[in-house]
Amino acid sequence: EHWQEIAKKIDEEKDEYDGIIIGHGTDTMQYTGQALSLMLKGIDTGVILVGSQRSSDRPSSDAAQNLYSAAKFLKDTDFKGISVCMHSTVDDDLCSLMPANKIRKMHTSRRDAFETVNAQRIGSVDYRKDKIEIESKTDNSKEYDPKFDLDTQIGYIKIRPGMKPEELDWIKKKEYNKTEHHEEILEKVEEITENAVVVMSSECIYGRTNMNVYDAGLKIKETGVIEAKDMHPELAYVKLMWSLGQGGDLEEAERIFKSNIAGETQERSIYNE
Amino acid sequence: EHWQEIAKKIDEEKDEYDGIIIGHGTDTMQYTGQALSLMLKGIDTGVILVGSQRSSDRPSSDAAQNLYSAAKFLKDTDFKGISVCMHSTVDDDLCSLMPANKIRKMHTSRRDAFETVNAQRIGSVDYRKDKIEIESKTDNSKEYDPKFDLDTQIGYIKIRPGMKPEELDWIKKKEYNKTEHHEEILEKVEEITENAVVVMSSECIYGRTNMNVYDAGLKIKETGVIEAKDMHPELAYVKLMWSLGQGGDLEEAERIFKSNIAGETQERSIYNE
Repeated sequence: EHWQEIAKKIDEEKDEYDGIIIGHGTDTMQYTGQALSLMLKGIDTGVILVGSQRSSDRPSSDAAQNLYSAAKFLKDTDFKGISVCMHSTVDDDLCSLMPANKIRKMHTSRRDAFETVNAQRIGSVDYRKDKIEIESKTDNSKEYDPKFDLDTQIGYIKIRPGMKPEELDWIKKKEYNKTEHHEEILEKVEEITENAVVVMSSECIYGRTNMNVYDAGLKIKETGVIEAKDMHPELAYVKLMWSLGQGGDLEEAERIFKSNIAGETQERSIYNE
Repeated sequence: EHWQEIAKKIDEEKDEYDGIIIGHGTDTMQYTGQALSLMLKGIDTGVILVGSQRSSDRPSSDAAQNLYSAAKFLKDTDFKGISVCMHSTVDDDLCSLMPANKIRKMHTSRRDAFETVNAQRIGSVDYRKDKIEIESKTDNSKEYDPKFDLDTQIGYIKIRPGMKPEELDWIKKKEYNKTEHHEEILEKVEEITENAVVVMSSECIYGRTNMNVYDAGLKIKETGVIEAKDMHPELAYVKLMWSLGQGGDLEEAERIFKSNIAGETQERSIYNE
């Protein structure tokens, strides 16, 4: 697992440096943040995950400020632990230092997409005034005791109206193929799209999906999966039920799903900045 | 399906009344809101779903104000369509009228748990000043054309790091048992808990789970499922991987999962009002 490689590398190198910054994609940063926080509990070095919501080749990129703020925070404070540094606002003024195990990406595209969930920020860096503020004390009382093991035989089921008990059957299978999962999942999805409408929606809740931005998205698009755009997962789920219920074939259901029936989807989102 | 019964009843009765208020539990209100919006597209009556985050037998209940505000909005405006009326703030001052197909429950317990997602509010009712404000125009241009059909053979898969392709196998099964699903799901969950740690987490993201509040929660608790409390689903997911990875038996993994390892869970949430 990648999380284990990252954690082991940090464990090996941590005494050589005053602090460690890790560049990370934003979609899975909350998962990695949680994994590292657990594996490296009580670490006596500051580790900050930094991502960017806009690529560094765009004038609106948040990459430089997030990176600078993370470095300044490591240099000027005695922070120890695993943190994430991202924009606090949509302007280039303030970055938040957030506990890496209490964050969530709450918007697909905004620079201030990351929020702490049920927790306080560690601090902030004012980019314009070059000033740091500490907002909550980090608990440094835990002894450092790295533990890298993971059991990845874990399913994830979304409980929701209309759920069928049979969905749980696969959980009992314990033998998984260890080959390249990405490709296999894409193949399965492709098979499924032959007899079903498959919709991809964003876990972010706010914002909208866009499968044209990255390679991975384009590959999913090729399998025949369609996008929920600005509809969050639960809404897309009910809309799909209804679209298929209109009695047409799969193509017709797909056409219905993609069209704006009752104001549930717009081509341009408000608050999309 | 209950959604169809509600929608058909509204369709039958709508000409008899100036407006319709429906009391609804909050956990599935966003699903019902979407279903009704689609089934009753272009309806020429105002329909408002009203819930409460605190039971009506508690002094802090939001039930009365939500209900009053919904009634006032129906009486004093010419709103047509499907809406939801819930608190805008944690104080008993303002209620929001939100498009029922663009909402999400974003907190497990706060009175202002419901937010519009990628959309604007329809309006608000100031409870103290007894004043209504219209904040966005509703599109009344659609022709009323009720369509009640649903196809409920729809799965829901959470895409996430560590996902296994085999999880998708069950999708190909098209024959589902039509008996009482709730009981069957509970039975399956109970079987699964014999050989696995099963964690329940809240879709709300903010807030915390509490299985002691309702009967349904108590039943789930009896199957052996444990709670994620203030950890949102993605964090709980990674923590479960890690808890199971520590090499103990299932009881030990459950004990680890429930304890606060690196600040990822607290007994009392901040912002829990």
